[in-house]
Amino acid sequence: MKVERLGEWGLIRRIRRTIGSGAPGVRVGIGDDTAVLQLTAGAWLLATTDLVIEGIHFRRRSAGPADIGWKAMAVNLSDIAAMGGTPRFALVALACPEETEVEDVDQFYDGLTAAAAPHGVALVGGDTSASPAGWIVNVTLLGEIEGAPRLRSGARPGDVVAVTGVLGRSAAGLAVLEAGRRPDLPGPVLDEVERAHLRPAARVAEGKWLATHDAVHGMIDLSDGLATDLGHIATESALAARVALPRLPVAPSARAVAQALGLDPVELATTGGEDFELLFTMERSAAEVIATSLGSATGAAVTVIGEISDGAPGVTFLDAEGRAVDVGHGYEHFHG
Amino acid sequence: MKVERLGEWGLIRRIRRTIGSGAPGVRVGIGDDTAVLQLTAGAWLLATTDLVIEGIHFRRRSAGPADIGWKAMAVNLSDIAAMGGTPRFALVALACPEETEVEDVDQFYDGLTAAAAPHGVALVGGDTSASPAGWIVNVTLLGEIEGAPRLRSGARPGDVVAVTGVLGRSAAGLAVLEAGRRPDLPGPVLDEVERAHLRPAARVAEGKWLATHDAVHGMIDLSDGLATDLGHIATESALAARVALPRLPVAPSARAVAQALGLDPVELATTGGEDFELLFTMERSAAEVIATSLGSATGAAVTVIGEISDGAPGVTFLDAEGRAVDVGHGYEHFHG
Repeated sequence: MKVERLGEWGLIRRIRRTIGSGAPGVRVGIGDDTAVLQLTAGAWLLATTDLVIEGIHFRRRSAGPADIGWKAMAVNLSDIAAMGGTPRFALVALACPEETEVEDVDQFYDGLTAAAAPHGVALVGGDTSASPAGWIVNVTLLGEIEGAPRLRSGARPGDVVAVTGVLGRSAAGLAVLEAGRRPDLPGPVLDEVERAHLRPAARVAEGKWLATHDAVHGMIDLSDGLATDLGHIATESALAARVALPRLPVAPSARAVAQALGLDPVELATTGGEDFELLFTMERSAAEVIATSLGSATGAAVTVIGEISDGAPGVTFLDAEGRAVDVGHGYEHFHG
Repeated sequence: MKVERLGEWGLIRRIRRTIGSGAPGVRVGIGDDTAVLQLTAGAWLLATTDLVIEGIHFRRRSAGPADIGWKAMAVNLSDIAAMGGTPRFALVALACPEETEVEDVDQFYDGLTAAAAPHGVALVGGDTSASPAGWIVNVTLLGEIEGAPRLRSGARPGDVVAVTGVLGRSAAGLAVLEAGRRPDLPGPVLDEVERAHLRPAARVAEGKWLATHDAVHGMIDLSDGLATDLGHIATESALAARVALPRLPVAPSARAVAQALGLDPVELATTGGEDFELLFTMERSAAEVIATSLGSATGAAVTVIGEISDGAPGVTFLDAEGRAVDVGHGYEHFHG
């Protein structure tokens, strides 16, 4: 059945059934003009929003409706994670062409709720509309934090720069999906990188854990790529950042894909973007304990990749010989 | 200058400058991943979101960038107003084609902040992106309410149905803008209806005032048209609503446009939509005092147009002789 046959109110009723209700803190959810919500007393309110557009952020050729829903939620979860906050409530606006199959819309919400559910996030409102061309999704995620949020501007001179997990998989996955042919690599390798691109996992537990430790200062999630995102920390903190390229935890799967497709694995890791790992700075003296303890608490690896110092705000990448290397730029919209 | 020359970060810096910072309750605004905000202690959090898409919700032929910004904010303000809440923080996502003039983007934010400023709403975050075709805007508005919000489901048997202001102007304005030629009517009449369509004013003060009065029960804003929106109150309250068509406060300007363009003024008022007046139900015994007092407090007229009773949920429109009349349906996306 096409969306145009179901009609807008039919679609909203269907979404309401899919989503359910009665989540903690939700006095009024989907179905009224406005959601009525309750935060934990004394907590700060966190709010972030992301627009995801077919033909710009994804192609229907490689991303199914459930992938689109999952990722639209995950990118917002990652933004809340980067502050060290707890995600709580989501508002989701979806526009799709009238001839869209209702089952595709169902799958979209399935993917969205599958990404949200492990974090206890309730879908509390949104908007639906026809689209003149392609899918358009906007997710706004509301969360809370009781202590001090970690900001891009929080880095301090003498801090080390660290990253959770591994890098380069999402960009490798995108390269595979865009290649048009499956490279001659083991299935699990291809699955891993494609999944990293289509179904990224936000580091929510890790962000919350890190934000409870005073030694952790500046933080951001890796959405636009290490070069760009560390650049934000450097600029907003008005400090210089240096990264030792040999230290980067480039994923073995990303290296394999890079080799098969003739790409530079370091470029995938530094400018590829969308790994949604956490990039943070912390006191050098605490680094080993923080890395070990975070691993015990959440299972996430931590790798120290560089350091922060006084100096002209910006990022310098150094090769094995300590020479500055130009790694290009991360993803930017509107670059001419 | 085109947006693609300025680049994404250049655009964000420019928006940041346009918007300013330091609003009450904003600990972190535009520029980090996530806004960090503070509500009034003990207040409920209100959240609403609306997607506004070129070719679906407006045409660039008739709406300038400042109009688009204004209206994207106003429709959300109206949703918060319909609850009786206080709007506080906005997140704005904008996608536009790379060849968009930066001045158009400036005007968009000017229109947006012009609509927001009278209500003390701070722009605290958002997203920018390229668009494959046309402008795409999503505004999420956060607000708060300390008492009980007014809901669609709040109507009670015996209530009267009332509306603020006048009806039909927005639909008349749209008809003029779409007609391609200016009807032979006085300039002020045309200006009034076009302004009602392009620069609607949300009834924020009126909604807050009404929500402080226990006699006011159900409430919604007129976005999809009286027939549809009163239908929501009837359905969600599981009650029957009756409206006397002769009582409708159809705007004289809308009547004049209807006559000039061969339209039915009652249809403009019942199904035209986007008047953004408040539609509410209240105890019959309190109606006169509420109407007079709201007028004194805010200047807004109140007209009683019908009543609520036990019965099959739905809306019946009655003509001067008390006969049921079919007035058609309000705006619905995806109607086949």
